[in-house]
Amino acid sequence: MVPIVCIVGASNVGKTTFLEKLIPALTRRGYRVGTVKHDVHGFDMDREGKDTWRHAQAGAQTIAISSPERVASIRTVPHELPLEDVVSRYFWDEDLVLAEGFKRSMFPKIEVFRSAIEPQPLCSPSDNLIALVTDAPVDTEVPRFGFDQVEGVADFLESRYLKNRKRPRVLVQLDGKKLPMKDFVQDFIAGGLVGMVSQLRGWRRPKQLRVTITLGDNA
Amino acid sequence: MVPIVCIVGASNVGKTTFLEKLIPALTRRGYRVGTVKHDVHGFDMDREGKDTWRHAQAGAQTIAISSPERVASIRTVPHELPLEDVVSRYFWDEDLVLAEGFKRSMFPKIEVFRSAIEPQPLCSPSDNLIALVTDAPVDTEVPRFGFDQVEGVADFLESRYLKNRKRPRVLVQLDGKKLPMKDFVQDFIAGGLVGMVSQLRGWRRPKQLRVTITLGDNA
Repeated sequence: MVPIVCIVGASNVGKTTFLEKLIPALTRRGYRVGTVKHDVHGFDMDREGKDTWRHAQAGAQTIAISSPERVASIRTVPHELPLEDVVSRYFWDEDLVLAEGFKRSMFPKIEVFRSAIEPQPLCSPSDNLIALVTDAPVDTEVPRFGFDQVEGVADFLESRYLKNRKRPRVLVQLDGKKLPMKDFVQDFIAGGLVGMVSQLRGWRRPKQLRVTITLGDNA
Repeated sequence: MVPIVCIVGASNVGKTTFLEKLIPALTRRGYRVGTVKHDVHGFDMDREGKDTWRHAQAGAQTIAISSPERVASIRTVPHELPLEDVVSRYFWDEDLVLAEGFKRSMFPKIEVFRSAIEPQPLCSPSDNLIALVTDAPVDTEVPRFGFDQVEGVADFLESRYLKNRKRPRVLVQLDGKKLPMKDFVQDFIAGGLVGMVSQLRGWRRPKQLRVTITLGDNA
C-alpha cells in the first residue's frame, strides 16, 4: 500500500495551511500526492436536487461522476472505514498519502504545534510521531522543523518514504476487507501473480498491478 | 466486472426520474446498485475554501473524505476515463451499475423515449439497445415497457444480469488500465490466484477478491 503520513494538531493550528505548502513541495519533486480528510459531521459534497443526489436518495450505494477533468465518487458505508481501507480503495498510483487528522490511528504522524494554542504537543513518539512542525523550542526526540522549513519536511519524507522502495507491497482484499498476511505469503502471492501476468502481451513494467476477481455464485 | 447498463435518452426525457423508480425496485429485491453520471462540463462537488478544495488547489492528485456515513473521493484525470475504468475503480461490491447517459459506449442500453420529445428513439439494437421504456407504440425488436412498468424492467434486468452468474469475472489493471485477456487466460489467473489465497486463514467465500501489488522500483 502507498505510505500514509497523518498531519495532526489542535484545531486551528494550521494543518491545512501547512499541507498547502507541503503538497507542492512534494509535487515539484515529481511525486504524486493524495490527501484524506476526516469529517465526523458527514459532508455535503453532493447537492440536493442534483441528479447524483437523486440517485443516492433512490438507494444507489455508490455514485460516480465522470468528466474530462475529474472523477468523483460517493459511497454509503455502514460505519466509518479505517484509514487504510480508504487509502487502499481510492489511491492506486499515488506515491504518498497525507491524511489530515486521524490522530488516533497508528500511522506515522507529523504534528503541527503552536505554543499559543496548546500547552504541549498532542502526540509523543509512542503515538508514532515522526516529526514536529512548531514555532516553539519543544524538547522532543523526533526531528523538529519550523513553519518556514517546508522543504526540510519534504526532504525528511522523501528520504523516509519515497526513495528506495524495493520490496513489492501486496494488499489482498476480500469483499473490500484487508486479509492479513505474513511477509513470505505476500512475496509468494506477488511472485506467482506477477509471474503469470508479466507473460501477457501488454505488460510494460507498471508501478501497480491490480487483479479483481468477482466470484460466481457457485464459487 | 460488475454488469453495466446505460440508461439513455434525449435531454429532459426523464432518465433520472426513471432511475429514481428503477433503483428502489432493484434494491427492494436485495441487489446493490451503483450509478454513474457523465458530466461534460466538469462538476462542483467540492467548494471553494473548504479544506479538501485547498488540498486540490495545492496539487493533490486524489482527495478522499471519510465520515461515519459516507466516503467520497475526487481525482484529477488527464482525460476522461472510459466508463469501464470508472466502474472497475469505484464499484467493488455492487451487483449492477446503471449509467445515466453514455449513449456512445458499447455497453447495453435501455432507452427512455417519449414521442413528444423526439421523433424516434436514439438507439437501435445495433447500438446494443436491450429495451425501450416508452409512451409510444414504437415498432422495435427489443422488449418494450411503459413508464409504469418499472417492475417489468427490474424483472428483465434481474433475469438477464443478476441471476445465475456462474463464471468468475477477472479484471487485471496495470497502473489502473485494464489489461485485455482472453477467457482462458482469465480462468487461468482466477484459478491460480483463488487457489493460493483460499488456503489462507481468513478466506470465507467472498464475492470479490482483489489483489493490489505495488511493485518496487527495481521490479
